[in-house]
Amino acid sequence: MNVTIRGRTEHFRTVTFDAKNNFVLLIEQRLLPHEFKIVASKNFRETAAAIHDMIVRGAGAIGATAAYGLAQGALAFHGNDLKKFSTHIAEVYQTLKDARPTAVDPVNAMNDVRREMARGKTVEEKKSLAIAAAEEFANDDVRHCEEIGKHGAKLIRNGMKILTHCNAGWLAFVDIGTATAPMYAAQAQGKKFHVFCDETRPRCQGGTLTAWELAQQKISHQIIADNAAGHLMQRGEIDLVIVGSDRTLGRTGEVANKIGTYTKAVLAARHKIPFYVAIPLSTIDWNLKSGLKIPIEERSESEVCGAWGITSRGKREYIRTANPSSGARNPGFDVTPAELITGIITPAGIFKPKELWKHRHKLGFAN
Amino acid sequence: MNVTIRGRTEHFRTVTFDAKNNFVLLIEQRLLPHEFKIVASKNFRETAAAIHDMIVRGAGAIGATAAYGLAQGALAFHGNDLKKFSTHIAEVYQTLKDARPTAVDPVNAMNDVRREMARGKTVEEKKSLAIAAAEEFANDDVRHCEEIGKHGAKLIRNGMKILTHCNAGWLAFVDIGTATAPMYAAQAQGKKFHVFCDETRPRCQGGTLTAWELAQQKISHQIIADNAAGHLMQRGEIDLVIVGSDRTLGRTGEVANKIGTYTKAVLAARHKIPFYVAIPLSTIDWNLKSGLKIPIEERSESEVCGAWGITSRGKREYIRTANPSSGARNPGFDVTPAELITGIITPAGIFKPKELWKHRHKLGFAN
Repeated sequence: MNVTIRGRTEHFRTVTFDAKNNFVLLIEQRLLPHEFKIVASKNFRETAAAIHDMIVRGAGAIGATAAYGLAQGALAFHGNDLKKFSTHIAEVYQTLKDARPTAVDPVNAMNDVRREMARGKTVEEKKSLAIAAAEEFANDDVRHCEEIGKHGAKLIRNGMKILTHCNAGWLAFVDIGTATAPMYAAQAQGKKFHVFCDETRPRCQGGTLTAWELAQQKISHQIIADNAAGHLMQRGEIDLVIVGSDRTLGRTGEVANKIGTYTKAVLAARHKIPFYVAIPLSTIDWNLKSGLKIPIEERSESEVCGAWGITSRGKREYIRTANPSSGARNPGFDVTPAELITGIITPAGIFKPKELWKHRHKLGFAN
Repeated sequence: MNVTIRGRTEHFRTVTFDAKNNFVLLIEQRLLPHEFKIVASKNFRETAAAIHDMIVRGAGAIGATAAYGLAQGALAFHGNDLKKFSTHIAEVYQTLKDARPTAVDPVNAMNDVRREMARGKTVEEKKSLAIAAAEEFANDDVRHCEEIGKHGAKLIRNGMKILTHCNAGWLAFVDIGTATAPMYAAQAQGKKFHVFCDETRPRCQGGTLTAWELAQQKISHQIIADNAAGHLMQRGEIDLVIVGSDRTLGRTGEVANKIGTYTKAVLAARHKIPFYVAIPLSTIDWNLKSGLKIPIEERSESEVCGAWGITSRGKREYIRTANPSSGARNPGFDVTPAELITGIITPAGIFKPKELWKHRHKLGFAN
């Protein structure tokens, strides 16, 4: 999406490939929203480190980064020995996989690239196929988000006030994003609307990343404390909720997403406000039979007991907000049941959560 | 309640009167939870400034502070001229009232003191009556909180997990508090339980003040992000919710309290978890006929866009967490309808919210 730097507006993806130098170029997301910077990862180890250190985060974005990283590793190989090349690729693959061991997207993305490379007869052919496959993966990610935008934009009417939670924006993908895609598409159609960004404690992705995205795109928005949405709904100030998803159960329609999503769904149901979840197909889990079986990561207490930000002297710093002798519970995600979800916005259309299974073939499930 | 300083545990009230020196002694609440300090206010102007600058905050605490401030002003008067004394008292009263013009408690407290003083025939008599009346006001505040604790403790069973929001603890009153009173009483009865303190963004009173109180009282507790309560309720980890109230409508049972209270009530209702509001009688509004008529204060954007805390070098500092070019909405309170409230814990017993009016005489309403 667009970023304006020193008055000049340019289009960026979160990750791109510089084939001439064999660099993977990444937005340094840890500096956002206070600084915008592109960093060049010069070899596959640096690319793995960028995933591990969260220079890049978000399902689609780390998938594409791993795909490019594999191509980058392939390109760096010297010689024509196919056997040695194969050993080298196995090492690159493992290094990139180990960078974020619980994530499924890098593995899926790299498997796509490897499948394409297998069609090559020579090292040179395999290198070309790797680059093409990585580009294809990234372009597919963008296309899917565009499709989500196309379907979701129909939900947005002029003058609407929309609530979103956390960041399921373009920064989490290669471009456009999922929960934000309907907003960007509606804006392109000339619609006017206002977005409330939940701050999304404890990591504040709504107040930092989503707010930054919307500001760059010149979409009218305000940050609210996570506590405020209920009151705004009660006073008729929210017309629509759109959030993302970390995992969607294809069999039940349950959605695991950032902690606090469930609360917003409960509030929306009480106020009869449509609650939509925008997802890429890759987050659908066709196996799990109950949301209660989704393991909920318990994250560090320090996230709840403090915050990162910029001091008055412009320095990025962590402060302890909480009572020093108290501890915290910090579940990172929660699960929203299907009955609270109006619809799931996918690249293939909008579906009732309980009808995902019925439409599973349209949604890319082979069985 | 108890505070442990350098290994020594002592009992404190938020405000006390040092008659010998004519000082009002206050816990410097702006330093909490990072530092515990008692400050002496040496004259009524300093006492007014302490209310204004929020060294002391909370309905009961500022009421008692104003009562003591009026007595302090009376005591400082030299001479026996009743007319001059009366002019002086009027000035003291106005100065203390102006310190927090929207608050009702200082005015009620000072009117109590003035009513008692009117019984005195000489300046000396009036001075004595003023001190006695101020002490009586503070003691009544403590007694009411004790009564709330006595009634509320019956709701707490061994092994329970209790959620509270914001700070309606002893720091907001002279001692004991309202939402915390049942916990302190249950602890004294030997009951074991665990408290989850909502962080309570944007001002974090739960993670700072309530967590500090519970830590000092050695009550098992953890801070949670405001986003986490829904998930914990869903997983059966919360058995009871107790919160305070800024204003309770005697005619409808609606409760205005810190932003986010309504959300917790909606979640509790969905999960059939009892939701109680503990209140002193002074917060009951017998006139207003609808919660929608309660004006909701819009507070500063900077509260939502950042946080106060302690840096790694031990310095208290404000950091900007949010995207620098984004603004915020910051409603300070919300209104919870009676149908979501299981009961109102008052000094006179526990009542269904819609039955407050029926019991209005027990609850101190004259009409």
